[in-house]
Amino acid sequence: MDNRKGMLLVISGPSGVGKGEMVKAIMAEDDSLVFSVSATTRARRDYEQEGVHYYFKTMEEYKRLVSEDAFVEYAEVYGNHYGTLKSEVYQRMEKGQNVVLDIDSQGAMMVLEKMPECVSIFLLPPSYKELRRRLEGRGTESAETVEGRMAKAAREISRKDRYEYIVVNDNFDEALSQVRAIIAAEKHKRTRFNPDVPQE
Amino acid sequence: MDNRKGMLLVISGPSGVGKGEMVKAIMAEDDSLVFSVSATTRARRDYEQEGVHYYFKTMEEYKRLVSEDAFVEYAEVYGNHYGTLKSEVYQRMEKGQNVVLDIDSQGAMMVLEKMPECVSIFLLPPSYKELRRRLEGRGTESAETVEGRMAKAAREISRKDRYEYIVVNDNFDEALSQVRAIIAAEKHKRTRFNPDVPQE
Repeated sequence: MDNRKGMLLVISGPSGVGKGEMVKAIMAEDDSLVFSVSATTRARRDYEQEGVHYYFKTMEEYKRLVSEDAFVEYAEVYGNHYGTLKSEVYQRMEKGQNVVLDIDSQGAMMVLEKMPECVSIFLLPPSYKELRRRLEGRGTESAETVEGRMAKAAREISRKDRYEYIVVNDNFDEALSQVRAIIAAEKHKRTRFNPDVPQE
Repeated sequence: MDNRKGMLLVISGPSGVGKGEMVKAIMAEDDSLVFSVSATTRARRDYEQEGVHYYFKTMEEYKRLVSEDAFVEYAEVYGNHYGTLKSEVYQRMEKGQNVVLDIDSQGAMMVLEKMPECVSIFLLPPSYKELRRRLEGRGTESAETVEGRMAKAAREISRKDRYEYIVVNDNFDEALSQVRAIIAAEKHKRTRFNPDVPQE
């Protein structure tokens, strides 16, 4: 009997730490990991499909969902609103899927409050100096943007003590194998995986 | 700054499930894993050294330690008493070592009560039929002993819901890599591993 239940995996860390690369790497190798479809007040683009790319909501609908506590987390980005629907997350978890949220620490704090049973990982840079080097190395950000990101990084890192796991992304392959181990271990938590032992 | 703190790792499971082999395999590859020195009322053998092989205690001393709640777990085996001293376990954990206890479920239940922060893994056989095959395969046990062990196995397995992690030992290498992942993940729990990020 397989009675695995999915988990909600929150991966957070400052911009430049390698969060996007990490999420991409783990999702490429593990079919049980999925994203949830977010709700947004942003205008639909031509190629986007309702329920596939996003659930498109009017501002009124969005506000109602917030007031109904329908979101695990939500945020405003450049005037548009985005939210992760509880119903979406739960549905996937019930099917045994593991929902991945790649979010900043502000969103993560909301998730930790609303779903304390989530698995939360904070990716830490080995140093501020190295984080700055990575941000500058992108070559796409102005000096001003880098300073802004460094200031935000300090705020993000100040919240690290709220996460369940901390992984330092110094060497990417090592950090990846640590995140992999966390996922593998969490899949074997008795609360998610508790098979019966057949007589035969 | 390295502020890793050790863990107490409880590995349990019915006789024949491959617990001994598992403990041997993980300890061979990870220097941070250690056993603690037990206290016993058993007579010292010639080659045995106090504080190395055991702490040898008189029955009176042993009873006093029990009454003082000095043991994480203790048990009687063929008329001799054995106990894992809290002081021993804590001392090793403070040094960042991870103490491994390879014990039956009765002992494990005591540990879970006295040190709920321990990491507990229950090794489950894929089936009772396979467990019987392994016990008989040893070739060293009488039919009567096998029946006794099967009855004890059922009692052990009935307690599996108390453990934090469950690993099925069907294929040994797979089970080993799962136990490895649990240990790696637990080392990255924020409560054990929470480095500062240097400016430089």
